This record gives sequence, C-alpha cells and structure tokens, in this order.
Amino acid sequence: MAKYVYFFGKGKADGAKEMKELLGGKGANLGEMSRMGIPVPPGFTITTEVCGFYEDSERYPSKIEDGVKESIARLEKIMGSGFGDSQNPLLLSVRSGAAISMPGMMDTVLNIGLNDETIQGLINQSGDPRFAYDCYRRFVNMYGDVVMGLKPESRDDIDPFEDILHEMKSKAGVSLDNELSADQLKELVGLYKAEVKKRLGRDFPDDPMEQIWGGIGAIFESWNIPRAVAYRELNNIPEDMGTAVNVQVMVFGNLGETSGTGVAFTRNPATGDNVFYGEYLMNAQGEDVVAGTRTPQPINIIQKGDRKIISLEEERPDTYRELDEIRHKLDTHYKEMQDIEFTIQKGRLWMLQTRSGKRTGVAAIRIAVEMVNEGLITKEQALMRVDPDQLNQLLQPTFDPHEVHKAQKEGRQLAEGLNAGPGAASGRVVFNAPDAVEWAQKGEKVILVRWETSPDDIRGMDAAEGILTARGGMTSHAALVARQMGKVCVAGCGALDISYKDRNMKVNGRVISEGDWISLDGTEGVVFMGQISTRPSEILRVLLEKSLAPEDSPTHQTFHQLLTWADEVRRLGIRTNADEPEQCEVALAFGAEGIGLTRTEHMFFEGDRITSMREMILADDLVGRERALAKLLPMQREDFIGIFRAMAGKPVTIRTLDPPLHEFLPHDEEGIEKVASAMGVPVDRIISRLEALAESNPMLGHRGCRLGIVYPEITAVQARAILEAACTVAQEGIEVLPEIMIPLVANVEELTDQKKVVLDVAEQVFEEQGVKVDFSVGTMIEVPRSALTADLVAKEAEFFSFGTNDLTQTTYGISRDDSGKFLMPYVEKGIWPHDPFDKLDQAGVGILMDIAVTKGRSTRPDLKVGICGEHGGEPSSIDFCHRVGLDYVSCSPYRVPIARLAAAQSALREKMH
Amino acid sequence: MAKYVYFFGKGKADGAKEMKELLGGKGANLGEMSRMGIPVPPGFTITTEVCGFYEDSERYPSKIEDGVKESIARLEKIMGSGFGDSQNPLLLSVRSGAAISMPGMMDTVLNIGLNDETIQGLINQSGDPRFAYDCYRRFVNMYGDVVMGLKPESRDDIDPFEDILHEMKSKAGVSLDNELSADQLKELVGLYKAEVKKRLGRDFPDDPMEQIWGGIGAIFESWNIPRAVAYRELNNIPEDMGTAVNVQVMVFGNLGETSGTGVAFTRNPATGDNVFYGEYLMNAQGEDVVAGTRTPQPINIIQKGDRKIISLEEERPDTYRELDEIRHKLDTHYKEMQDIEFTIQKGRLWMLQTRSGKRTGVAAIRIAVEMVNEGLITKEQALMRVDPDQLNQLLQPTFDPHEVHKAQKEGRQLAEGLNAGPGAASGRVVFNAPDAVEWAQKGEKVILVRWETSPDDIRGMDAAEGILTARGGMTSHAALVARQMGKVCVAGCGALDISYKDRNMKVNGRVISEGDWISLDGTEGVVFMGQISTRPSEILRVLLEKSLAPEDSPTHQTFHQLLTWADEVRRLGIRTNADEPEQCEVALAFGAEGIGLTRTEHMFFEGDRITSMREMILADDLVGRERALAKLLPMQREDFIGIFRAMAGKPVTIRTLDPPLHEFLPHDEEGIEKVASAMGVPVDRIISRLEALAESNPMLGHRGCRLGIVYPEITAVQARAILEAACTVAQEGIEVLPEIMIPLVANVEELTDQKKVVLDVAEQVFEEQGVKVDFSVGTMIEVPRSALTADLVAKEAEFFSFGTNDLTQTTYGISRDDSGKFLMPYVEKGIWPHDPFDKLDQAGVGILMDIAVTKGRSTRPDLKVGICGEHGGEPSSIDFCHRVGLDYVSCSPYRVPIARLAAAQSALREKMH
Repeated sequence: MAKYVYFFGKGKADGAKEMKELLGGKGANLGEMSRMGIPVPPGFTITTEVCGFYEDSERYPSKIEDGVKESIARLEKIMGSGFGDSQNPLLLSVRSGAAISMPGMMDTVLNIGLNDETIQGLINQSGDPRFAYDCYRRFVNMYGDVVMGLKPESRDDIDPFEDILHEMKSKAGVSLDNELSADQLKELVGLYKAEVKKRLGRDFPDDPMEQIWGGIGAIFESWNIPRAVAYRELNNIPEDMGTAVNVQVMVFGNLGETSGTGVAFTRNPATGDNVFYGEYLMNAQGEDVVAGTRTPQPINIIQKGDRKIISLEEERPDTYRELDEIRHKLDTHYKEMQDIEFTIQKGRLWMLQTRSGKRTGVAAIRIAVEMVNEGLITKEQALMRVDPDQLNQLLQPTFDPHEVHKAQKEGRQLAEGLNAGPGAASGRVVFNAPDAVEWAQKGEKVILVRWETSPDDIRGMDAAEGILTARGGMTSHAALVARQMGKVCVAGCGALDISYKDRNMKVNGRVISEGDWISLDGTEGVVFMGQISTRPSEILRVLLEKSLAPEDSPTHQTFHQLLTWADEVRRLGIRTNADEPEQCEVALAFGAEGIGLTRTEHMFFEGDRITSMREMILADDLVGRERALAKLLPMQREDFIGIFRAMAGKPVTIRTLDPPLHEFLPHDEEGIEKVASAMGVPVDRIISRLEALAESNPMLGHRGCRLGIVYPEITAVQARAILEAACTVAQEGIEVLPEIMIPLVANVEELTDQKKVVLDVAEQVFEEQGVKVDFSVGTMIEVPRSALTADLVAKEAEFFSFGTNDLTQTTYGISRDDSGKFLMPYVEKGIWPHDPFDKLDQAGVGILMDIAVTKGRSTRPDLKVGICGEHGGEPSSIDFCHRVGLDYVSCSPYRVPIARLAAAQSALREKMH
Repeated sequence: MAKYVYFFGKGKADGAKEMKELLGGKGANLGEMSRMGIPVPPGFTITTEVCGFYEDSERYPSKIEDGVKESIARLEKIMGSGFGDSQNPLLLSVRSGAAISMPGMMDTVLNIGLNDETIQGLINQSGDPRFAYDCYRRFVNMYGDVVMGLKPESRDDIDPFEDILHEMKSKAGVSLDNELSADQLKELVGLYKAEVKKRLGRDFPDDPMEQIWGGIGAIFESWNIPRAVAYRELNNIPEDMGTAVNVQVMVFGNLGETSGTGVAFTRNPATGDNVFYGEYLMNAQGEDVVAGTRTPQPINIIQKGDRKIISLEEERPDTYRELDEIRHKLDTHYKEMQDIEFTIQKGRLWMLQTRSGKRTGVAAIRIAVEMVNEGLITKEQALMRVDPDQLNQLLQPTFDPHEVHKAQKEGRQLAEGLNAGPGAASGRVVFNAPDAVEWAQKGEKVILVRWETSPDDIRGMDAAEGILTARGGMTSHAALVARQMGKVCVAGCGALDISYKDRNMKVNGRVISEGDWISLDGTEGVVFMGQISTRPSEILRVLLEKSLAPEDSPTHQTFHQLLTWADEVRRLGIRTNADEPEQCEVALAFGAEGIGLTRTEHMFFEGDRITSMREMILADDLVGRERALAKLLPMQREDFIGIFRAMAGKPVTIRTLDPPLHEFLPHDEEGIEKVASAMGVPVDRIISRLEALAESNPMLGHRGCRLGIVYPEITAVQARAILEAACTVAQEGIEVLPEIMIPLVANVEELTDQKKVVLDVAEQVFEEQGVKVDFSVGTMIEVPRSALTADLVAKEAEFFSFGTNDLTQTTYGISRDDSGKFLMPYVEKGIWPHDPFDKLDQAGVGILMDIAVTKGRSTRPDLKVGICGEHGGEPSSIDFCHRVGLDYVSCSPYRVPIARLAAAQSALREKMH
C-alpha cells in the first residue's frame, strides 16, 4: 500500500530533502532538519499525491485516515499531551508546501485543537490566560477566514473579524491588539463564533478532529484558488504538481517576552554578502513578520548598522549563537543560501522551515561565485544556479546621483524605508493591484503603493515599475516577491499614511494622490516626489563608461567571473544585432563574438538619406532609381566602414533591404505636403505612389528579397557599399568578415537571383579596388517554405539565419501587431502556455527549425546556422537553439550576457543527460 | 560516338515515332511515315541534343559537320541532283521540331540552295521562270527575315521586304503578288539583296553550304526568341528540352495548277466528328495556308456544305482518294486524330508532317469516346487523352438565341466568317496584341481583331475573350491557337477591312473603332455589333435547365460516358464548395458526392442579416452579442435546412465564421452614415469600433477560430443552427451528415476549446429536439503550425481539410492580394514555374500537406482528409492530392467534372507506375 503520511521529529524522519516532489519543499526539509539533529517541532507530512485525489470522494479522506490518526497518536506520545485533552492539550498547525516554493501563496492554520475545554489546558500550560485567549481568537479568526471562507470578497469589502476587533478596541479605548485584556479577548472569541454562525448558519467546529480535517482540506482546496493559479501561470509551474500538507506541533513565539519569531537568510539576499541576515519580533507569531503588519528588528549588529534599535544578537546572545550555528550548518549542508524561519518559545529555539532563498540577480551571482571559492560547489553548479534573466537586473539603470542630490536640495525627498528591492524606478502612484494592471495596459508607468502586499497583489506587482509599502521588513511579502521579480521595492516605509478610500497618502505632511509621480531608490531605500533621471548601472559604468575601475566593483568581478566560466563551457557562439558602431561597442564590451544581424533599412531614415531614399521610390524608371541610389552609396559605405572597424576580425552579417518601400514615405497629409515641397514634387505624385504601394497585408507583401528581385539595382548598390567598405577596411590592415544576408527567401531561385547580383558586383568592386576580401552570401530562414526546402536553399546559401519573429508569424498565421486582441484570452485559457513571440514555440516553429537545420546540412554539411530573431536573447529559446545544433545565437547588445550564461547552461544540461 | 544526324526517305528511316525527345515530334513522325511507306520528301533530322550545345563553340558545329555533309550527299544520290548544281540543283527546307508541338512558334526556311547560278537549274527543272524567280524572291525574303534578322522591330515598324514588294506592285500596277512577272520577281531578288547589303553591310550569302548552316543555326537560335520563351511559359514546357532541326528536300506546291498544298485533320478538330477535315490551296506553298494570307478551300464535299466553292475531292479526285487512304492509315496507326500537312507537286502527293492534332474540348471527348467504341483504344487511354481543363469549354455559355435573333432584327449582324473556335464572347475591339494585354490588365474584356495572327500575338490572344481575323481558314494560326486555348474565334472573315493605323475596321459599310463592343459567335462563325447576352451551354441545358433531353445531345452523351468511366477508376472522392441550395443542385448535377466547404459568412451579408451581424459587432457586452446572435439563429437554421435537404445522404462540411469582424462593417463615410442612421447608432460609435477592429495585416489577424475563442457565443449559435437544422431534416426522414469545421487552427488547444463549445450545444439541442444525429468536428489545415503538429491536432480533429489558399499564403509569407506587384517578374525570371495560388506548390506547401497527412493518420488511422482550397479543382493539384493520400477534393460546382476526370487520370497514372 502506498504511503501517504510521513512522520518527523526527535532527530528522526521518514522523509528527506531529496523527496521534494512527494513531500513538498517544506515537508522534505523539515524531515531533513530533523535528521540533522536540528530542533524541529515534530509533525507529519501528507504527500502531494493526495492533492491529486482530494476531489475524489471515493479515495479522500479514506486513504489517509489511518495515517493521520496514527501520527497524531505518535505526537501525543512524544509531547505527553492529548489532542482535545482539556488538561494538557496538543495544539497543531497545518501548512501547505509544494515542491516548488510558492511564498505566501498557500494558506496556513495555527492553533488547531483549541475549544472552550482545551483552552483551560492552554491556560494551565502557559500560565497566561491573556496569551491563551489571544491564541484562541487568532485561531477562530484564521480558521473562519481560511477554512470557512469568511474573507472580504473585494477590495472595498470589510473583513468581518477585523471589523469586530476594531469595534472591541475602540470600546476598550486601546489602539493595539496586545493592549486588549484576557477577558476582552475571550469576549472576542464569542463574538467571532457568533459572526460565523450568523453568516454561515452553522456553528464553529469545536471537535479537534473536525478542525484538523477542515484545515487539511482547506490546504488542498487552496491549490486551486485564483491567486495560486495566477502565480503558477506567471512562473510556469505545472498545475498537476499539487501541494503537500504539513501538520506540526505548535510552538509559540507569542508566549511572553522570552518568546519570539523570525525569518532569516543564511546570506544577504539583496547583495549576496556572506553574512547572516534576518529579522525577528519578540512575543509574536510568524505571520507578524512575513505579512509585514509590524516592522521587525534586525537579527544582528552588522545588519542593524547605526539604527537605534536592538538586534537579536544583543537581546538574546545565546539564542543568536545557537541560531548562527544552525545557519552555518544549513548553508554548508545545503550548499545554497537558505531562507529559514524560527520560533523562540520561552527561550527555546525551534526551526520551522528551511528552503533555498529567493535573491536578487547581484546576490545570485555573488553567492554562486563565492560558494565556488569556498569549495562548496563546482563552477558548473554555480553556472546552473543563476537564472540568466536575472543578469538583466545588473544592467538596469540607477538614479543619477546628481539628480538625487538636486531632488534632495529641492526638498523632494519624501521618506526613507528599507532597500528591499534594488534598482531605480519612477512612476505614477496607484493604490491597488487592479489599477496597476489597468494603468500599465494603457502604457502608464506605475508605482504600486500598499500598506502591505499580499499574494492577491501579484499581478499588480508584476505590472508596476516599483512597489512601496508602509509596513513589513526585508523578508515581507512585498520584499520577497519584488526581489524575485527583479522589481524595485522600498518596504516598511513607516512615514506613509495611506487612505485607500481617498486614493492618496500623507507623508511627512505632504499629500500624494493617485496619479502623482514618485521615484523609488530601491538600492538605498529612499522615496522621492516627481521623476528622477537615471544613470547606467555599476556594470555599465565599468564596461561601457569606464568611469569605474573593474577592481573597485565586486559586482563586476563576480559577474565577469561567472561569464568567464560560462564561456569555458558553452558551445553556442554569441553574436549581436547591431546597426551602428556604438551598438557594436556595447555588444563587444558584453562579450559578443560577431554581428548576427545588421539591418540596413535603419540607415536610410537619417537626415539626407531619407530624401534620397524617397527620390529612389518616386523615380519613374531604372535611371532615376539608380541616380538616387548613387547618392546613398557613399553614406552607406561609411556606415559599413564604421561597423567593420569596430568589429575587427569578427564576422558581420548584413541584411539587404527588407521593409516595404511605403515605410519610407510619409502617410499623413502634413508629412506628404512637407516632403512634396522639400523634394519639389507635386503632392499628387506622392499620393499616387502611396496608392500604388499600398498593401492589404504589408507583412506578407512586396518586401524582403522580393524588392531586390524587382529592383536588382537596390541589392547591387547595397552589395557595392558593403564590399567597398570591406576593401577599404581590409586595406587598413583590419580583418573583415562580411556575410551578406538575403531576407525573406521562400524559393532557392530567389536566392540564386540575388546572389548573382551580389557576386557580379563583387567581381567589379574587387577589380576596381585591386583587393579581394572573403565574404559569403546566405539567407534568412523566416518563412516556412525556406525551412521546408532547406536542402535546396542550402545549395546557394552559405549560411542560414533564423528570423524567428517572421517565422513565428507565418507558422502561426498570426500578425504580431494584431495579436493583442486575442493574446490575453489565449494565455488565460491556456491555449498558449506563453506568448510565442516572447518564447520560441518549440513544438511548432521548432519543428521547422529542426527540419531546416537537418535538410540544410544534408546538402552542405558545414552550413553555418544562427538565429537573429528576438528569441535569440531568451534563455528557453537559446536552449532550444543549442539542442537543435545551431552555431550561434544573435541578440540585442544588452542581452549578450544573458545569452552567454543561457548557452553555458544548455551545454551543461546536455552533459548531464 | 553519339549519333546526332538521323536520315529518312525512300521507305526507310533511322528514327521512329517513339524517338520524339531526341528527334522532335516532326522528325520522329517523318521517320515513322517513311517506314510506313507513306510518300515523304527525303531528309534528315539533327537531334535536340545539338540544341543543348549550340552555343558551345567547342562542340558546334564540329560534332555534326560530317553527319550533315554525308546526309546531303545521300540526298543528292537519291534525287539525282546536286546541292549547288547549276544544272540540276538540290533545294532544301530547314524546319524546327521540338518534342512537344509548338505550332508556328519556330522558324522555317525554304528553298535553301538557290543563288544566281542554281536558279537556272530550277528554271530548267520547272520549265517556269516565273515560278523559279518567285521561289528565289521568297527565299531571299524568308532567309533575310529569319536568318539575317531583317524583321520589323515594333508594331509600327515597316517590314523592309514588304515595303519593296509593295512599291514594286504599285509600280507594276498590280494588286496581287502572283500578278508580278518573272522579270519583276527577278528584279525584286536584286532589290532584296541590295536592301540586305544596305542594312547589314554584308552580302546575302550565295554559297548553298553557307546558306544551310545559317538556316540550321537560326533554328537553334530561335529556341530562345521571346515569343518561343513566352509560349513555353504559357504551356509549362521545360526550357532545356531543345528543338531538333529537320532538313528536307523541297517539294513545291506552287509549281502551277497541278500543284498545291494543304493542311488537314483526320477528324473534325472542332466537333470531333469522324470525318476527314482540311483545307488546301492550289499553286501555293504551305505558309499560305497556315499563315492565313489566302483563305483556302475545303478538302471535301461534306465540309464544303452549300458554299459556292470547289473542294479537293471534286478538283482532284485521285489525289483526294490517295490522301483519304493515308488519313485512315495514320488515324488507325497512331490511334489518335492527326494533324497533317501535304503538298501536291505536279500531281504527285507528298506528306510533309503528321502529328497529334489540337482540338476543342468537345472534340477531345468525342474522339476519345468514339475511338474506344471503334476498338482503337481502351477506356483508360481515352481517359488519359482528354485534358481535364478542356471540360471547362463545354460549360461555357453560348449566345442566347433570342438575343441573337433580336440582334439580327436590329441589323446588328456585321459579318460571317469561319467558326474556328466555338463559344460566345463579347468584348471591346483592339487591333494589336500589346493593347489586348494592356486593356485586359485594366479589367476590360477585349476582342483581338487582326488581318491574321502570328506567334507574336500569343500573349494578346491569351488576354482576349475572343479572336477575329480577316484572313485564314480553319487551320490558320488563329484557329489552331484559339481552339487550343479554348478561346472563341471567328477566322477568315473576308468582309473586314482593317486599318491598324487608324485603329478601326470597315465592315460592310460600317466603321468599328477601337474600343467599340462586338460579339463573336464562334460556334456559328458570326460577328455582331454590341454586346449579346449569353445562355447556358448544351451540357448545362441538359444537366441543369433540363431544357434539352440527354439523348438529343451527342456532346452530353460523350461527356457523360467519359465521366462515368472516370468514376469507375478514380479513388479520390469529389466534393464541392457550396454555400446555398442552388449551388448544391448544380454540383450534384455535375456529380459532386458531398460538400467540402460551406462558408457561413456569406450567409451574413444578405438583407436583415447584415444588420443583425452589425448589431452583434457593435454590442458592448456578451448580452448584447447574444441578443443579436439570437436574431441570426433562425435565418441560419433555414439556410442549413435547405442545404441538408439538397444534399440528402451526402456529407456536408460547414465552416464556422472565418473573416475578421470589420469585414461586416462599412468602411467609407457614406456607408457608415447610412448604417448609423439605419441602426440608430451614432456615427462615432461605428467609427470607434472600426478603429478598434482595424488591423495591420487582416489576413493574419483576429479571424478564424480566434473569433470563436474570444466570442464563444458566435460558435455556439452557429453550432446550434447547424444541429437544429440537422435534427429537423433528419425528422423528415432525410439522412444528414454534418461535419463542423473549425477554421485557422494552429494549436490543438484551439480546437479543444471550440469542439467543447460545439459538443455542449449538441447535447442541449439533442435533448431539446428529442433526436440525435451523427456529426463530426474537424479542422481546416491552413497554417503551417497545424500541419507540423497534425499528430496532436488529430487527437481532437475527426477530419482535416486543407485550406491551401491560406496555407500557400503562410508557407510563402505572401499575401495573395499583394502578390500582383511581383508576380510578373517572378514568373518571367523563372523563380516561380507558375503562380502557386493557381497550381499547388507541391515542392513546398506539398511537403506540409504530406507531413500533415502522415502525422494526422499516425494518431488517427481513419482520419478523413480533404482539400477545399481553390487548388481542389486544378488538375495538377488534384494529382498531388491523390498521391499524398487524400480522401477527397472539393472544388467549385463548375469544376466538379474537371476534378472527376483529373482524379481518374491520377488513379490511372498510379496504376501505370
């Protein structure tokens, strides 16, 4: 018979850390800690498999009934207490725990086992009626909320229990919960239960077994609540993974001044520093720390800095020492930064959780690199530990210090808070998540301001540029989620007085209303009024500005170290898409090994060029077109000279003209008149040309090589500019490796035609210049037909480059510009697991790529194949490119580091399999 | 060593009819006739291989020099004459001849060997100086024209030899060529030669060997002249096939009144009647008959009818009898209608050519069917003999006899001519081919009027609705080409006096100018002024109007017979694309076995429906949309009831809404205002909805299943209409087989979503109606992704139907609407062997279809697969569908017969391999 209930406690456990899929992360790690001899309140885990048959009344709960009963009996024996015993009651917590950590997404119920009889036992045990009744009223509140569903339904709704509590406090004339007396708390329990009865028409359950089954069921049910579904969608977590349920003996952090609770990281999750980092609150339960309802204290002296507060290290040095030892033990044992929860009950330390902790990109790199240096992990493990997309955070701009100084001088600094999510963001204030989503969809940049965030706010946080909260610490929900998302966050900004109703906040005597601009410095933890301009990040100052020496930036050092390791293992080449020398410089600084795509059309939009281009388009005949093109030749040649010099010795792929000609003409009345008078051409001429060039579906129209085939003179002048530039630069003693790329080829015959134009020009140019340079002619693979007939296309093409933007459009029959109308329903209905324009559609477009590579190499075994669509900078797409055998990926300059790491991970993944 | 020169003559031959590829059709058949003992002037054939190396000076002419010399020596021996002998000169003709007949496309040179010395020998031989000098001046004219290139270059240019001849005639005061005296003709030779010298700066060649090599070279060169290239393009003849050259001893049809020349068919090429059919001219050369410069006489009494002219049967009964015997011999030997050329030299008959003859669609069917009945060929051979596209001619309308009668009463009958190309056509008069092409491109219907047509007019004839010539008979160039193209043609209409310069013609005292409307009755050979309305063809009168009894129409009988044989052998099912019961009736009459595509959107454009449709589109919410859709439900249900009744017992595939919604709204100001006031909606509302619905690339936008996914209520109401109709008709005792087809599926998940909507509705409808009907749900395969993932799509789809219009667009990345801008250069440059929207691109789109069929059946072995794109009615595409294993093709009702025959041919072709 399958085992569905796993016990742990007293230095032993049925489970271990390797069993995450079955026991969830929390359950597996509770078992592991127990085995390691770390003090863990005993308990048991109901496996994730049970989540799968929770809704099947034939199997649930019959399959686990015995296991749960036996385990409770075992806990009673260990603790010497009884579940429901009025003298010495056993109290239990129920918590969710899936294989992949979903922080704060799932629900928790504490103090199960309390009723009007067992409360006496708790009073006896604790000797503190106030504590006992506080536990009781918290239990009824939490159980009523989570298990019985008495939650506020909308953002304007009132929480029924909050309402009663509020009334009780004003009746008692107090402002804080802990100022209520035992009797008042007891009265509260009665009022809460009456409210349950009133609202639901049934009694609050008093039977502990009924309570525990209710709790377990609620956890399983919560797997499918909308915010959990939304989180999984955002994070691509499979729906069928399921959650486990952890039932544990209660320990109390709110049992007076020698009790407390805290959350900590074994290293600093924002910077990666190898120092113990955490927060705690004495006389409190865990929720108080995580939910951010009270701002907690720092765990040690280092973290406290010069703030006038006390740290755990000072307040309870023995407990801190024990905790610090556990921290070392876990960090070394797991060889990963751990996110831990602990409770101190009457001076005794209990560990409630350990798990791999969320961290910023900076921290992720630093921890990975330092753990290699500490001998804990290998370089390969370090490379696999960093999410490539996180590298992007290191390149994000920060506020320009001069602008910050100016803002301060102008008195625009509003308040300070905790630097919970590094970075800089300006945006307009909104006070709730749905507004954040709405405004962002309209193209507004927003800052989401909340008293505290909750899992319901996930979508709003994702839509916002930054998050500002009034309460909560470095480990609050807002801080954790912001860091994971790479969002700027200032948390625990106590000066804020927010009114959701009035849609404004008072801050140090000022009123900031919805829609006002504010700026968040998440690295320093400061809030400003208005917008503040930014400057490049530390990495950029080292690599591009060179205003910072590499040795002065530990961030750069670890970044550089990790990417050097990445370069050692990756097989894929990394190129960049760049149209001008400046972009080349950036890409080279980031480690690009060549250019995968130079779009020549961008060159035609500047200054005089657009005029010559228009002259060409408006010309009546070949002679007129050639005259206009002759004017463009020297300008284009200069462009290519600049690029070839910058890319010295590295390959440069240049694509011939791609967009339809009408893109170069003005389309509005005013623009047409302007151009007509500037060019001395009648307005009618331009209008009639526009009419002649108008297309029903420009994406599928007269563009790409179809232009060059109808107007070979365009291809010829471009080939001439490229090859003349190549000769010039080669004569300077700089190596040039031009690759001329013909776009939108569907039939090999198109390529044959265009290649001939290029080769004829090459012969002339080399003759004229008296030099020869090696070059190649290849094609974009961006419509299905060229992929399907790649064996034929490769007869002419010396290289392929996948244009996956267009290839995705044509494979799906979807115009990216028009897909907005159905994108949301498609993602929401799960028809698209993700937008195929963001992540390469491996199951469809990928088949074509595979066909193209295989057929292309069947004709030309040494065919060079790359990708230059936007997917070339997206990690999962890069992984596919590696697997399908591409030679290189090409992406925007700023994504080159991401591509280097992603390519390394692909190579390592291959090695592992 | 390879043999490049093949000899024939005196009842023997190196070649035979099977060697067409090597010797060309003419050469192979000259050899065959010689072997058969039919009198053929002896000669030799230079093989088509030589055409391939003609431009290679290393190999040409050295490889054939000996063969040519030896063959000429052999001819001298047979004829007892000498090439260049002044006493008894051997004269030769040089003619082209490719494997596939290209009538009149290639050039010919006659009388080679004539010069100022040998002319004396010819005078001696013929005893007729006038004849001899006429030969000489014809030779210099023809040689100067064809070999030396002295041709008029444009339509306004003057033919230099024509000019000199014209002057000579006016000087001599005569109007016809044959009124010139021997001396005048001799003078003409001198003038011609002087003109050559003047224009080219070199002498006309007098050496017979130089002449013969010039002639041979000119033939090979003429393979690549524009009109030959154009003809091959139009007829899909490969460029590398090459032509052979036939050198033959001259025989003269212009050697006095006992000489003559003619062209004939072994059966009637217009009707297929098994009677000898042809034309001749006494004292003339072959060119005079074919080029139509003189209108020839009928070959026999039957054909003469009651015309007041003499026939060959009467004029030379012995020759006619001999010719008729040869006709029978050839018809039986080749088991095919032959197109023959003959010359009578001083009473002796010589056969110059036999080949399979061009014929109309009616004739093709009749001859094929009758040859089966005559025991000459098998049913299978008969099926392979008819070009499926020719069936289309049988369905073309003819003039309504009432209208013709009216036109005659109104005095609008202009003239009578030969009924050279059956059918009826009205159009505006143009007088040259380039104008015909230009006008047709602008959308005008034109009738091309010429004195006579020449191969240069091919493109113009193709662009015209009909062709009218003043000269030339039933076997003239105009008549031959028109019949082959299926164009209406009235030839030899002697009443026309055409002035190309004034762009008008005088006809029986009336003047018809360029741009005037005329009408041609090609079946009767009558020309009318103005337009005349048409009525259905004979076949349609039998099948649809039922105004003609089947037994009264031999055309219908053979048509029916052939298609019945086709049905016996074909494997592919034939369905039709029909949106309304009337179309169903037509398709059923033509033999359709079901509907492959009913487009529901057409139903929404009629009357009230468009209003309800617009209401739906303008609705703000689901309730509004559902209200509007409810109004459409009963109307749609009625449509489907009509279709199900008509198609009783046959499958009906219905596609859910496909086009983007903006197609249902007006786009112009006036239209918008009209709709706004009719619907009581503000103009702004419509404009803003239009703006919201506007798309950059509508073809790739919010359409197809993407509509149904965002608005499931649309799919639901359509499914309801279909299934309610099915229940109603089923309850009438009529079998219904609905197949609901979801368009534009790219991911199987889209189909899953839409199928669920349909199945849910079905359950409700069957419950409400108390009946159940079998139905299936399938999908269009019209974007590459669904083809590539067909294994997954087939998990949900119960059938596939290829939408090859869209599939071609997306596979190429080309919008059909926009491809006009580069279609011509693409076809001209040979990048596209044909427009992929006309003929299925087997090499590209075909790969996707193959993948889809294979993958789809790997999941669902009994998957039904069809095609409903326009390619479903095109023979080469149908052949591909057969080979790739489709179950059926679906085409427009009028193409059903074509599809039946094409499908039969595919099955037979498969059997043969």
